[in-house]
Amino acid sequence: MIVVVSLNPALDVTHHVAGVDWSGVNRPQQVTTAPGGKGLNVARTLRALGAGVRVIGLAGGITGEAVRARLAAAGVAGTFTPIAGETRRTFAVVDTSSHDAALFNEPGPAVAAREYHEFLVLYENSLAGCGAVVLSGSLPPGLPEDSYARLAVRAAAAAVPVVLDAGGTVLRRAAAAGPAIVKPNLAELQAAVRRPLAGRAAAAGAAAELRAAGAHAVVVSLGGDGLLAVTGEGTWHAAPPAQAAGNPTGAGDAVVAGLVHGLMLGRPWAERLRHAAALGTACVAAPAAGHFAEADYRRALAGTQVIQWADR
Amino acid sequence: MIVVVSLNPALDVTHHVAGVDWSGVNRPQQVTTAPGGKGLNVARTLRALGAGVRVIGLAGGITGEAVRARLAAAGVAGTFTPIAGETRRTFAVVDTSSHDAALFNEPGPAVAAREYHEFLVLYENSLAGCGAVVLSGSLPPGLPEDSYARLAVRAAAAAVPVVLDAGGTVLRRAAAAGPAIVKPNLAELQAAVRRPLAGRAAAAGAAAELRAAGAHAVVVSLGGDGLLAVTGEGTWHAAPPAQAAGNPTGAGDAVVAGLVHGLMLGRPWAERLRHAAALGTACVAAPAAGHFAEADYRRALAGTQVIQWADR
Repeated sequence: MIVVVSLNPALDVTHHVAGVDWSGVNRPQQVTTAPGGKGLNVARTLRALGAGVRVIGLAGGITGEAVRARLAAAGVAGTFTPIAGETRRTFAVVDTSSHDAALFNEPGPAVAAREYHEFLVLYENSLAGCGAVVLSGSLPPGLPEDSYARLAVRAAAAAVPVVLDAGGTVLRRAAAAGPAIVKPNLAELQAAVRRPLAGRAAAAGAAAELRAAGAHAVVVSLGGDGLLAVTGEGTWHAAPPAQAAGNPTGAGDAVVAGLVHGLMLGRPWAERLRHAAALGTACVAAPAAGHFAEADYRRALAGTQVIQWADR
Repeated sequence: MIVVVSLNPALDVTHHVAGVDWSGVNRPQQVTTAPGGKGLNVARTLRALGAGVRVIGLAGGITGEAVRARLAAAGVAGTFTPIAGETRRTFAVVDTSSHDAALFNEPGPAVAAREYHEFLVLYENSLAGCGAVVLSGSLPPGLPEDSYARLAVRAAAAAVPVVLDAGGTVLRRAAAAGPAIVKPNLAELQAAVRRPLAGRAAAAGAAAELRAAGAHAVVVSLGGDGLLAVTGEGTWHAAPPAQAAGNPTGAGDAVVAGLVHGLMLGRPWAERLRHAAALGTACVAAPAAGHFAEADYRRALAGTQVIQWADR
């Protein structure tokens, strides 16, 4: 069983409009809603892979109810500590003519100390007998930025490996707790080491610093340039096949799902990366975050090149 | 007691963003939600005027629950027949830098014949002892365009006066049922008589046609040019004071509230129009639909000129 922590879930609402009038009244042709936030995307991808998964988090108000109901309808088990605040929405407007998209991400409700304490009890109970914990997504207002670090420390005490998707200070602090894998994208890695990183070698150097700080393995997602993994067993680059433009939302979440799934299965690093990169690629080809077509996944698996770097 | 019919209510979500990136990711500084749809705006304005008001309509799903809860929190009594579909949202993005605003209005859920039949029982029961009925706002998908006409016929049979805010075919059909007041805007009046109307005289001519078709009085809202009323007692023009730009959303609904309120109080037409026009003006000055500041209302009342036209 993989436990996915979602402290700031969302209800994702997407309006599809042909030829948006950005200063007038529009009537969307199609409206879709889905449970959202990075953790919930990871959980849905894990569920699609057939992995046992459970989401735990915080949810409140009528939007929180909608997230609970939609997640259950998607077949993902979830337990959310109730909070007084109203769970956030995200709004996406997709212009089906120009393919422009505008995203509006609400910040989420403030979480009271008492509410978070209640979540911590749920978290401790969930660690018992769980194979891995995923910490992913923004922290809601009111939680200190070392919250993921503290959760990682508790998981380490219970001997449960942690996969962390975060950047900047949150990532730097959590690395010290010894997570099994951290997966920043390039911008998040730059924010963590506080300098611009040009090229894969520079990224590998910054990743090595995070390893020195405590993270067991660092996987950097480089968008169309694939994944770079710096681990105790070596350094690899996974290059996805060239692909047409798609919807990159949630591609990083699919990569995280692939990494934790590979960790649970005990896949060697080269295979783990191939699967994670292929899931990212397949996710870009799918219309909605957290989804992928089996055929796209198989095609991406066959087309992904994983190359081990010589030790430098 | 005034009964306001809201067949297609909405949850209005507004995102306030400084400097919107219309093809990127935005983090709104402020998010507001309110019960919406034209009928609910009318009802909130009536409540603010101290009139007894009750909303009846159709609502479904978690968004329907949110509308129910928000309306109750605003102190407006409401009874909604449950439907299987999910009540719609509207989404507004207001750029607080440029003052541009984009609106995205979901169409609303389809209503089954069985569900509408259940609403009709609620409607019949509500007519007993009620002083006036307001029919306002879009019809949800699945309802025939003579739905307002049929509701108006039932109200006439119960001797309850009807105030109707609609346009086009819906207005033309409902006029035959003898509503006390119909309030189209100029575009809706043009759609009802199927020709362009240039100037107040042309609008008055078209309004006279709707009276000939059965409507007792026709009040045309002309935006910044105020209101034109063609009634059995004469024709009036109400000219509001010049005003700075504001938020015109819901101004027509405030006018409807003023008209039905004046009808219930037995105000003579000139006074009724002055109040209705002033409410519209005060609503434009307020930040959200269905609201107005008492001081703006008083100032607009003093500044509104009502002139009776000589019979032509």
